[in-house]
Amino acid sequence: MVDSNGPLGVFDSGVGGLTVMDAIMKRLPGESIIYLGDTARVPYGTKSADTVIRYAKGCAGILVERGIKLLVVACNTASAYAIDALRKELTIPVLGVIEPGARRAVAATQSGRIGVIGTTGTIRSERYQKTIKSLEPSSRVFCKACPLFVPLAEEGWTTGSVPLLAASTYLAEMLHQEIDTLVLGCTHYPLLKRVIAETVGPGVTLVDSAEATSEAVCNTLSELNAFRPEGSPSQRSFLVTDDPENFERTGRRFLNDAIDAIEWVDVS
Amino acid sequence: MVDSNGPLGVFDSGVGGLTVMDAIMKRLPGESIIYLGDTARVPYGTKSADTVIRYAKGCAGILVERGIKLLVVACNTASAYAIDALRKELTIPVLGVIEPGARRAVAATQSGRIGVIGTTGTIRSERYQKTIKSLEPSSRVFCKACPLFVPLAEEGWTTGSVPLLAASTYLAEMLHQEIDTLVLGCTHYPLLKRVIAETVGPGVTLVDSAEATSEAVCNTLSELNAFRPEGSPSQRSFLVTDDPENFERTGRRFLNDAIDAIEWVDVS
Repeated sequence: MVDSNGPLGVFDSGVGGLTVMDAIMKRLPGESIIYLGDTARVPYGTKSADTVIRYAKGCAGILVERGIKLLVVACNTASAYAIDALRKELTIPVLGVIEPGARRAVAATQSGRIGVIGTTGTIRSERYQKTIKSLEPSSRVFCKACPLFVPLAEEGWTTGSVPLLAASTYLAEMLHQEIDTLVLGCTHYPLLKRVIAETVGPGVTLVDSAEATSEAVCNTLSELNAFRPEGSPSQRSFLVTDDPENFERTGRRFLNDAIDAIEWVDVS
Repeated sequence: MVDSNGPLGVFDSGVGGLTVMDAIMKRLPGESIIYLGDTARVPYGTKSADTVIRYAKGCAGILVERGIKLLVVACNTASAYAIDALRKELTIPVLGVIEPGARRAVAATQSGRIGVIGTTGTIRSERYQKTIKSLEPSSRVFCKACPLFVPLAEEGWTTGSVPLLAASTYLAEMLHQEIDTLVLGCTHYPLLKRVIAETVGPGVTLVDSAEATSEAVCNTLSELNAFRPEGSPSQRSFLVTDDPENFERTGRRFLNDAIDAIEWVDVS
């Protein structure tokens, strides 16, 4: 039984998931949210499935202890590797970012030729490929890991020649494959949207899972009749596993709202 | 009392410290070495002092349990933040990479104008600046964090326009400051040596701490009369905190020797 008064839990490896939190806040301003960024062990995208699953279970456990009514795994790599393990272990609903993104891509494509970019872990897991194929078996999916996009976004190099050259190197092959839809399969990539759009041109629709995920959260709360009752104002709080100050500084690029009430939690 | 038969311990946040291990193996082929790469929590360079100190203590503890006679902290960020804490806690000698690198820079400079590049953590710690100033108070030190160099090296983008553009962006200001010596203050940077050299030109000497550190290890063993007695062949082994296979694959770029006998250890 879900307690409607409980907050939503949003879990990410670091700051990137704040783009997902942002979209949820816009769609569901009445909900309270606790965000957990595993900044002491970020990034997940370069790490193995076993390690990511272990970290995801630990972080989800901390959020569950805080009484969340639903868990959003805002990190694509954690969604790719750990969603099944989390669903098996937890009694609350668990939503990832991959299924909503895949659904939107399938809805957007005309030619059925879909590109997916993400971290090494996300692409290696083949989770996007499998999900898209299960939704639309006739579609063709072309994937590419783009490991430099995360550090570029975190460094703030989101315009200019370096990201543009990196994007054209990573995306050259995909353009030959004549995709008409490209899934930004990592929460950092929306920050490079302009550069990516310039590289792929106007004929390719970019799919950002943040908004699609907020829609899925809304649908799930609706199905469970678990929207927070009106009354006391909704609250936001942040848990991090490394220095709160760094998180506040980098996080500003990702969330269009104040980041305060940051608490350090020990996961080591 | 140091047991001469014990192995040397080399600790790094990931694969980068293999460049230091490589230099030690060349200088001291008779010594056994246990390498520990904290690949489950890599990188350290973006994380806070407290977190790096906690991780470094944990990793050092694992190596001490294996009977090492001396600890080399091959990671610049861990050397910058954690060397004092480790020396306080451990009874064996602890060597970092910063002091040897700083010594070599002071010996190399003619003009006394020294540049240092490293991770955000290493530069923020001001450890290089302080060490160089204590060795040669009249020197001037110019620092710059280059966060994209690690992912570029790990991605294997060590030649071509992207690393060249990144290098000229990071180093432009330093070149105006007319340095004649540049410390590569991160174990990954030697992989970008060619690009960095091209950017700074032939008038600037590049200092790589790996070799300087191996010399310091040799001197310490000599002072303690703790060289390994001749006899049974020396052994090398590797401990990692994430997937051994990934380590083996990426590690090849850093060590000119076989990487086998890799064992996973749990630090979470």
